[in-house]
Amino acid sequence: MHAEQRERAQALLASRGLERALFASRASLLWLTGFAPPVNLGPNPFAGGPSLLWYAGGAWTLLVMDGHAEAATASGLPVERYLGYTIEAPIAAAANLAAALRALTAGDGAAGPIGVELNDLPAALAHALPAASGLTPIDGWLEPLRRRKTAEELALLRANFDLVAVGHRAAREAVRPGNREIDVWNALEGAIQAAAGERVAVGNDCTVGYREMNIGGWPGTWSIREGDSFIVDLSTQLGGYWSDSCATYYAGPPSERQIAMHRTARAALDLAISLVRPGAIAGEIDRQVRRFIADAGYPVYPHHTGHGVGATPHEEPRIVPYNRVALEPGMVVMLEPGIYFPGETAVRLEHAVLVTEGAAEILTSHDVELP
Amino acid sequence: MHAEQRERAQALLASRGLERALFASRASLLWLTGFAPPVNLGPNPFAGGPSLLWYAGGAWTLLVMDGHAEAATASGLPVERYLGYTIEAPIAAAANLAAALRALTAGDGAAGPIGVELNDLPAALAHALPAASGLTPIDGWLEPLRRRKTAEELALLRANFDLVAVGHRAAREAVRPGNREIDVWNALEGAIQAAAGERVAVGNDCTVGYREMNIGGWPGTWSIREGDSFIVDLSTQLGGYWSDSCATYYAGPPSERQIAMHRTARAALDLAISLVRPGAIAGEIDRQVRRFIADAGYPVYPHHTGHGVGATPHEEPRIVPYNRVALEPGMVVMLEPGIYFPGETAVRLEHAVLVTEGAAEILTSHDVELP
Repeated sequence: MHAEQRERAQALLASRGLERALFASRASLLWLTGFAPPVNLGPNPFAGGPSLLWYAGGAWTLLVMDGHAEAATASGLPVERYLGYTIEAPIAAAANLAAALRALTAGDGAAGPIGVELNDLPAALAHALPAASGLTPIDGWLEPLRRRKTAEELALLRANFDLVAVGHRAAREAVRPGNREIDVWNALEGAIQAAAGERVAVGNDCTVGYREMNIGGWPGTWSIREGDSFIVDLSTQLGGYWSDSCATYYAGPPSERQIAMHRTARAALDLAISLVRPGAIAGEIDRQVRRFIADAGYPVYPHHTGHGVGATPHEEPRIVPYNRVALEPGMVVMLEPGIYFPGETAVRLEHAVLVTEGAAEILTSHDVELP
Repeated sequence: MHAEQRERAQALLASRGLERALFASRASLLWLTGFAPPVNLGPNPFAGGPSLLWYAGGAWTLLVMDGHAEAATASGLPVERYLGYTIEAPIAAAANLAAALRALTAGDGAAGPIGVELNDLPAALAHALPAASGLTPIDGWLEPLRRRKTAEELALLRANFDLVAVGHRAAREAVRPGNREIDVWNALEGAIQAAAGERVAVGNDCTVGYREMNIGGWPGTWSIREGDSFIVDLSTQLGGYWSDSCATYYAGPPSERQIAMHRTARAALDLAISLVRPGAIAGEIDRQVRRFIADAGYPVYPHHTGHGVGATPHEEPRIVPYNRVALEPGMVVMLEPGIYFPGETAVRLEHAVLVTEGAAEILTSHDVELP
């Protein structure tokens, strides 16, 4: 899996004169190998640190806790493992990982500097590297390579965009007077997991319009009342990759004000989608969509107009004011204009699009229309 | 919050001659301050690294991403923040965190070594420390201090044990022919979140007995059939702290074999609980419970007999063969004997107990009896 990604990375490392590199960030490992441990529960008490990927002499090797070895092997790459859980001795996973890293990286005869993702490698592990010739920070180097999605990535992203559509159908039904935010959340999360047939990490916002901070937030015990707007911004992570999406629902018929806001947000989203083409400058799309909202007489949203999505939930191309990045075929872009009146009502609508040589292809299928 | 924890840590650091220290692990920060970012979604794309806690001159300061500052302030400690998300410039959270750490730790006039959790501090940040006098690894130093729970911690643990009871009630109802493992999971996770009124990180096992690996695993699409056993091992994380628990349910009336297994596991759990008292040696409890299972003619479970729980889901006192740790009042111990016939049927029952001067107090209230 992900051979095309490794070819891109290998070419980059060669062009910078690096024959050895150690990748430590979750996004890098996922992008280079297809492997990533589940995120749902926080630090694994039996892991000695992050999973690692070692590149030397043109070959790639994963180094993971034994409990992750089976999943890592699905990458097709060689997998070195270290002891995590045991009942025979105190848990010594960090020391075991350091020893395994030392063994993996020692004695390959190479002498040049080693590229290392120093923002994600634990300081304790830096000492396990044959660092006589120095460590070169390579944090962020893969990010430009990750912008254009491969066919393998697009398949994973499409599967995730299908899942958010399932969640939105459940949410639209659950947004009704008497339900609380958390009840809407349970309905959509359950529907997503039932459809996936497994646990799925789910984000982001599930927020009734009368909350003061109604741009977004995790669900709480706020109850839905007749006439409330309700933002559901849904991302899923299945197979490591993230989706995103947003719709706005109403408890009962929306008011005239809500209808006008929703129509404006819908038109702003259409405008944004129409601007997506190869060569379009991210910041220029951002500027036009913000101006559209302002020209309609609404306060301009304080967040991004959009962003890329893939191995992380927010990445390039960021559709934000400063950004001079030009769109390219193969990029996947979220677009999400919104209008907010804090403590009163709010709307945000979001689709994902794939940049193609022609018109943008909409990857999300959830319903963003008025009821 | 958590002042008692900081007093214990301060005394330890002083006894080792350390006037400055940097804590980087989630468990340490949670234990020392009560603050921990949510775990449910993996790495935050706007964070530059882990939240940090700096100790110098007898004072403690949290260093967190701006988006976490409000939650961190609830600790009552001073909070330094760095810029994470912005639409005005490229995300530069790692660089911002390094600069903030440099500013926080520079120029306090102290000259001695700095204690650092090097297993959790990114290598890039080690360079931001005034390291002229050296960095002393302090990984794991707090673990012995964390064994006896404070009153604040016990309150958090009790709240989490109440939540798993809610989940178990829902699971017991959902274990019926036709439902899949994931359907049971959705029922229990939804019930837990509805009761909590917010999102809750939930683990661990939700596994039908005829799975080959029936000790445990995340839920999948295996369907429950009449007569199946079903292990539900539930942990929750609310307020940062973890609970744990396990019960075994049956789809329809259990067979004679299942009844005998369940009764043996129940008696083994009772035995384990009866052995919990101050001064009891962890490995001796482990030995007696394993022998009880073996004497009953069953294969002995390959996992621990139990473990501590708190800021992490698995910690000291580990109830495992090698462990000579003596139990002390204030420790919270999970006890979970099981019997497994791979691919056929399995049972595991687990309670949490608090070590007191007298008999152990059972903290979990879920039903582990036969139907």
